Amino acid sequence: MSPVLSGMRLDGISAHAPAEVWSNARVAARLRLERIRMRSRSGGRLSPEQAKLFETSDRWVRRFIGFTQRHFCREGEGTVDLAARAARQLFERSGVSASDIDAIVVGSVTPSYLYSPPDAALLQHELGIPVWRGPAPREIVGADVSLACSSWVASLLFCYALIRAGLARRIVLIGADRMSAAINWCDRSFATVLGDAGTATLCTAVPEEEDWFSPSQFWSWLDGSQAQMICTPAGGSRRPTLTPEEIEAGEHRLAMDGAAVRRILVPFVGGPAIDAALAKAGWRMEDLDLVTLHEANLTLNESIVTAWRKRGLRGRVLNALGRFGNTTSASIPLALAMNPEDLSIGRKFGLFGFGGGLSACFAFGTIRHPLRAWSNLGPAEGAVSPGNERDG
Amino acid sequence: MSPVLSGMRLDGISAHAPAEVWSNARVAARLRLERIRMRSRSGGRLSPEQAKLFETSDRWVRRFIGFTQRHFCREGEGTVDLAARAARQLFERSGVSASDIDAIVVGSVTPSYLYSPPDAALLQHELGIPVWRGPAPREIVGADVSLACSSWVASLLFCYALIRAGLARRIVLIGADRMSAAINWCDRSFATVLGDAGTATLCTAVPEEEDWFSPSQFWSWLDGSQAQMICTPAGGSRRPTLTPEEIEAGEHRLAMDGAAVRRILVPFVGGPAIDAALAKAGWRMEDLDLVTLHEANLTLNESIVTAWRKRGLRGRVLNALGRFGNTTSASIPLALAMNPEDLSIGRKFGLFGFGGGLSACFAFGTIRHPLRAWSNLGPAEGAVSPGNERDG
Repeated sequence: MSPVLSGMRLDGISAHAPAEVWSNARVAARLRLERIRMRSRSGGRLSPEQAKLFETSDRWVRRFIGFTQRHFCREGEGTVDLAARAARQLFERSGVSASDIDAIVVGSVTPSYLYSPPDAALLQHELGIPVWRGPAPREIVGADVSLACSSWVASLLFCYALIRAGLARRIVLIGADRMSAAINWCDRSFATVLGDAGTATLCTAVPEEEDWFSPSQFWSWLDGSQAQMICTPAGGSRRPTLTPEEIEAGEHRLAMDGAAVRRILVPFVGGPAIDAALAKAGWRMEDLDLVTLHEANLTLNESIVTAWRKRGLRGRVLNALGRFGNTTSASIPLALAMNPEDLSIGRKFGLFGFGGGLSACFAFGTIRHPLRAWSNLGPAEGAVSPGNERDG
Repeated sequence: MSPVLSGMRLDGISAHAPAEVWSNARVAARLRLERIRMRSRSGGRLSPEQAKLFETSDRWVRRFIGFTQRHFCREGEGTVDLAARAARQLFERSGVSASDIDAIVVGSVTPSYLYSPPDAALLQHELGIPVWRGPAPREIVGADVSLACSSWVASLLFCYALIRAGLARRIVLIGADRMSAAINWCDRSFATVLGDAGTATLCTAVPEEEDWFSPSQFWSWLDGSQAQMICTPAGGSRRPTLTPEEIEAGEHRLAMDGAAVRRILVPFVGGPAIDAALAKAGWRMEDLDLVTLHEANLTLNESIVTAWRKRGLRGRVLNALGRFGNTTSASIPLALAMNPEDLSIGRKFGLFGFGGGLSACFAFGTIRHPLRAWSNLGPAEGAVSPGNERDG
């Protein structure tokens, strides 16, 4: 470990989504089935408000959320399986060996196991990262990092801190979530939104003068006063024990006040948050060639991008085209991996995580070395990302 | 933010345990009650192996685990409540203002809420850390960090990385767990061990020449090949849905193969792990004035300390005397806060997290500034910590 400061580059981004595709129509059908079950359990009575929670359609989801489909894991597959597939693809395609890795940082809100074991440890084994060097244990740094929808950019910030401080030199940064595990099938609000995906990004130390980032190019924000807006009522340590009725009602699954999210987050991210982050970095909206927002909801993101366009944004918006749903910790690297042709040297990018907590974590950087990206998902052929009017 | 490297000092350590004390006898009685319940549910039949899982006594726990009691939260209290009380005590006693804090790093394996909101965001609000500075949002860095029993030292490492890289200057580092939420009352293995506590430690940037640490003074290790040794079978993203029978059996609660933990972790931490960490730091066993091990189990820790004594350890072992159980992410700062008189300038310390994953995270440092510590727990009066023979 050198006592001098290092910079960080991204060497490669790999994304994986499980094979099973759920169309909006299939989600709507599942919600109808759950309504029938719930009605029979409640003796045939559902209030109009209750019944409404099960109602959706392909047309409604496309119009108000912007998603066309999402991928779901099979039973028995969790975050570690998504992450391991993405990381193996990263190693195979990049030629990097597992033995080159000295740290594993896992951004996720859906740990494969409660309490223990952590996914960072599971991935050491899944990926064959050596733990011994002759008779001595080989150091591997790592942990699981969680910050709701901002988990990936927060994890990127930790990777940057580790590398810059000389505590790691080659990190596999995971952003992976099996969000289908968090769906309450008695509530359309997240059932129409969430999807499963895993990503792996290689973060490598470079000399300081080649740094893609700088400390001033990260910006973070926490506001717990609005925590109930995106919240799982039970199952955490504040309310660990649920009755069978609460389980039936999905109290241990994620819930959202979608209207409040739109009312609070769109103007905040669209205005004061981006202004504060740009001011800290000394960047202007016009500097950004590429922006990728956490794919919370494409219509919500379009509202933010519209506000940014008015503030001078001319760059391209890279997203996953609504084909994977909101994959939480995977969304930003997934969108980058779907648009590899845009990741050319010299481009300045902005990565924007925001959501539950409330939280926000932004990063600005400049691509200074070749950045390759791979997915098992096929290219985003022929499609034009919403908000990219200048490419239209 | 300065472009030069910073060092880090610890300014104060605050520990809080909830009021309700559970003696070993009370734990044993609760297990007996659960056995009766289980027997009546299973039609009166329990195999001898099943019945044994409910058997314990004060004498057995004192002898084989070394704990005398632990503190448990009341219903409705979670990790965030333990953490907030510890942090408020830290602010009150140290005179530091919430408005001085620019980052919140939460080490915990028992998040207050599944998926969202993260405890880091909740604590912003609970502690009144300002989110606005006039019309502009004020930056607050943070996330929740999880690495089983190594969570606190892993979080300390992230704090060091943030400060050294110039990404934060004054961090409140939380180590808190409501481990009672993770207890399977059908299995004595963790029921006799776990306890609840919250801690808050102030990590402050100092000029590099006053650094208590260095990158070489941290050492980390992950080994997922033994992940099943300390594991929660269900409830995570790999197996999110449980039957009522699985819930009855506590499949969503933490389980441990205690014999394997002792067989694998004692020789590893007692030998190759400490050797690798010392070699990296360029320290010798003889250099350590103070050591604090994650209080997994005091008799297990004594075995490790015995191995270290043979390797030359002469320093004092600071622990919480078995009065709080295994509080996971709180255990190390809790032990420090119970022994404030030992934290004098010039002392060299070693902090040792190890456990589930498997994982280990060690830190060596030198106290170079006044370090105060507070708890709501009373001093460790008159008691002699096991392993401190030279003080006997």
